[in-house]
Amino acid sequence: MESIGIGLAGFGTVGAGVFQALQRNGELLYRRLGRRFEVRRIALRHPVKKRPIAAPEELVTTDWRDLITDPSIHIIVELMGGTDEPLALFRSAIAAKKILITANKALLAEHGVEIFQLAEAANVPIFYEAAVAGGIPIIKSLREAFVGNHFESIHGILNGTSNYILTRMTESAMDFQAALQEAQIQGFAESDPTLDINGWDAAHKAIILASLAYGFWLNLTDIQVGGIENISSLDIQFARELGYTIKLLASIRSHLDEKIEVSVRPTLIPQSHVLASVNGVFNAILIRGDVVGESLFYGRGAGQDPTASSVLGDLAEAAHALASPRTLSGFKPHNLRGQVKEASSCISSFYLRLDVDDRPGVLAQIASILADAEIGISSVIQPEGKNMHHTSLVLMLHDASARAASEAVARIGTLPCVKGKPVLLHVEHFEMK
Amino acid sequence: MESIGIGLAGFGTVGAGVFQALQRNGELLYRRLGRRFEVRRIALRHPVKKRPIAAPEELVTTDWRDLITDPSIHIIVELMGGTDEPLALFRSAIAAKKILITANKALLAEHGVEIFQLAEAANVPIFYEAAVAGGIPIIKSLREAFVGNHFESIHGILNGTSNYILTRMTESAMDFQAALQEAQIQGFAESDPTLDINGWDAAHKAIILASLAYGFWLNLTDIQVGGIENISSLDIQFARELGYTIKLLASIRSHLDEKIEVSVRPTLIPQSHVLASVNGVFNAILIRGDVVGESLFYGRGAGQDPTASSVLGDLAEAAHALASPRTLSGFKPHNLRGQVKEASSCISSFYLRLDVDDRPGVLAQIASILADAEIGISSVIQPEGKNMHHTSLVLMLHDASARAASEAVARIGTLPCVKGKPVLLHVEHFEMK
Repeated sequence: MESIGIGLAGFGTVGAGVFQALQRNGELLYRRLGRRFEVRRIALRHPVKKRPIAAPEELVTTDWRDLITDPSIHIIVELMGGTDEPLALFRSAIAAKKILITANKALLAEHGVEIFQLAEAANVPIFYEAAVAGGIPIIKSLREAFVGNHFESIHGILNGTSNYILTRMTESAMDFQAALQEAQIQGFAESDPTLDINGWDAAHKAIILASLAYGFWLNLTDIQVGGIENISSLDIQFARELGYTIKLLASIRSHLDEKIEVSVRPTLIPQSHVLASVNGVFNAILIRGDVVGESLFYGRGAGQDPTASSVLGDLAEAAHALASPRTLSGFKPHNLRGQVKEASSCISSFYLRLDVDDRPGVLAQIASILADAEIGISSVIQPEGKNMHHTSLVLMLHDASARAASEAVARIGTLPCVKGKPVLLHVEHFEMK
Repeated sequence: MESIGIGLAGFGTVGAGVFQALQRNGELLYRRLGRRFEVRRIALRHPVKKRPIAAPEELVTTDWRDLITDPSIHIIVELMGGTDEPLALFRSAIAAKKILITANKALLAEHGVEIFQLAEAANVPIFYEAAVAGGIPIIKSLREAFVGNHFESIHGILNGTSNYILTRMTESAMDFQAALQEAQIQGFAESDPTLDINGWDAAHKAIILASLAYGFWLNLTDIQVGGIENISSLDIQFARELGYTIKLLASIRSHLDEKIEVSVRPTLIPQSHVLASVNGVFNAILIRGDVVGESLFYGRGAGQDPTASSVLGDLAEAAHALASPRTLSGFKPHNLRGQVKEASSCISSFYLRLDVDDRPGVLAQIASILADAEIGISSVIQPEGKNMHHTSLVLMLHDASARAASEAVARIGTLPCVKGKPVLLHVEHFEMK
């Protein structure tokens, strides 16, 4: 049987990893699938850039359009990064009926609606297992294995860089900057780590997971996103005293009113919960389905090889799709529970840290504002002040709406006894809502 | 579009669960897949048996052959249990070109060779996600998501009943019989728990996983199987003192000599290892692939709903296969590393517990036999004897072949100072071999 032609758009870490893995395990794929894959063209933006592995010169082009027009290429693997050029590539490739594989979460999160409408109209399959949680087969699991489930919730640690930094801050009492620097030295954070640190990388992934679970694409503005850049080692230490660990947690949840809530933010989770022990660059995803119950996936979320493994799995799918075309893997936009819950009405427990004057009566003033807002206090920590005048005051607050909590905290922030900006973090107990 | 006809063979716990889940989430499946499923016939062996849910009378037959001859049935879901009748059903159904779905691990482990040869010749797909680890999509992951990987090892806790019993013995210092009785009262063990307890249920599952990882079916005699029926609370307690937890562990491993080793047996695993914290009726599977690295799956291994969820996932696959036939999901018997390592030559660390006379010189005699066999001792525990004459002696042994270890232990067993039968358990450190 004729071999299947691949065009690689992008030859960075992941692109080179796919190329190498195909060379190393091509024979294995042939024995399992009965098909051979051949990389026939590699589009590079910067052909002179120094790369750990060189792309074979005879395959290289600097114009991805050469992949589209090459009739010997059946599948295009997009690993370029960015969104503008990839979007242009997707439009052209779909028009040319090339099957697409991508690891580009930003592209799908921002342009999923357009891309999948075009793809469905043209009956061109798109595979993107590598876009979320590298080596964890979560896309396939949501849209195939668990297709018979209503999803009550999906919680995930989806950004390895953030998780590495928080782990180091927790284990070694490092501050954020030191942990970030260490992550960069270890190769776990990029030189510009903005998207990893500010929560948006995880948010893109959460949007993709929510699209599968609930059958529609959220807007970027529908999702509550916070990063770890302002987490201090003080918060990590207080959280631990209270029995919690701070993680950058993506939460996708369907409420009983059928509205869904999607957020990514630093969150206190109980130390005893399985996600609390997911450390370093690892990712984990906990699914709660109405039939399957709880199911957890754990693995490397990024990096050359885990991502390449997912691309190889997608190539196998693409090979099947070539041999026996079917409608978009049969998973349709089903628009279940298609409404987004307003952020301010979402209910959560909270952790509140204040820097306050160290004198009697302060707690009474703060507690009285919370009482006015009908927000209960479940525990208070007030360590002995090291500074003569200031001390930390940490309160764990019972379930309250985001609006009520932030309004009360704003009022607290105006008290003369409160110094600096209050720190308000969400607490997740993984209960049904 | 016409709805897809299902014949249910068997209406026990899982069968009834599938029926209910299809009724409850049929609309969801329709919205996601664009197809409706309809159960058109239910074959029962004992139509008068009291059941928690009654099968609709108009659908019931006592002869599964009625499912085969019914032209309105496209998919047969086999949930009968046993192997003889299911095998007869599979032969007839394949001849009649009905797509098959099963949760019957014993059937596949014992007759996989014949069944898949017939199925491939007739180009009839067979789906069996529910046969291994209920709600965990491990079959799909091995044969699709990780298809580009050589598997270095697969370790699993695959039997919920055994794991529940061992967990209770560990947490509450219960003995085996008490824990088994509790499991039966809780509904986690059947009235005849033999196959769960003696390791064979997990062994059937391990054979299925190995068939996907290495592309051939092992014989039942190729696999080393031990159960938990002789684990005493004494062993659990000593293991804990040494930093280990005892689990019924399925190990599938490819050695550097390309031979594979498959075993299911009570095994000491380090308390710090992630599998050590898989408790109660939960299952977990840890994959090590040459591209993806480590990936872990965790979820309910059995029970009505998790198993039903997997059957629904398989129904979705079957619907695709009906719409666009493809060759056996494209995963061929690839016969990689097709040789089984001889059990006696497999290397492992060991835990050895002896009941010995409480007098000087005993350890010296035992150590000398081990030294003769060139088996190193990594640690020794000899608690103060409660009995005037006897005491336990526990030794942790360095890597040795199964043959060398069992020969040495047999010699030790003949020493006059050794009372009763020595207890020899495997220790797994999850290293590459």
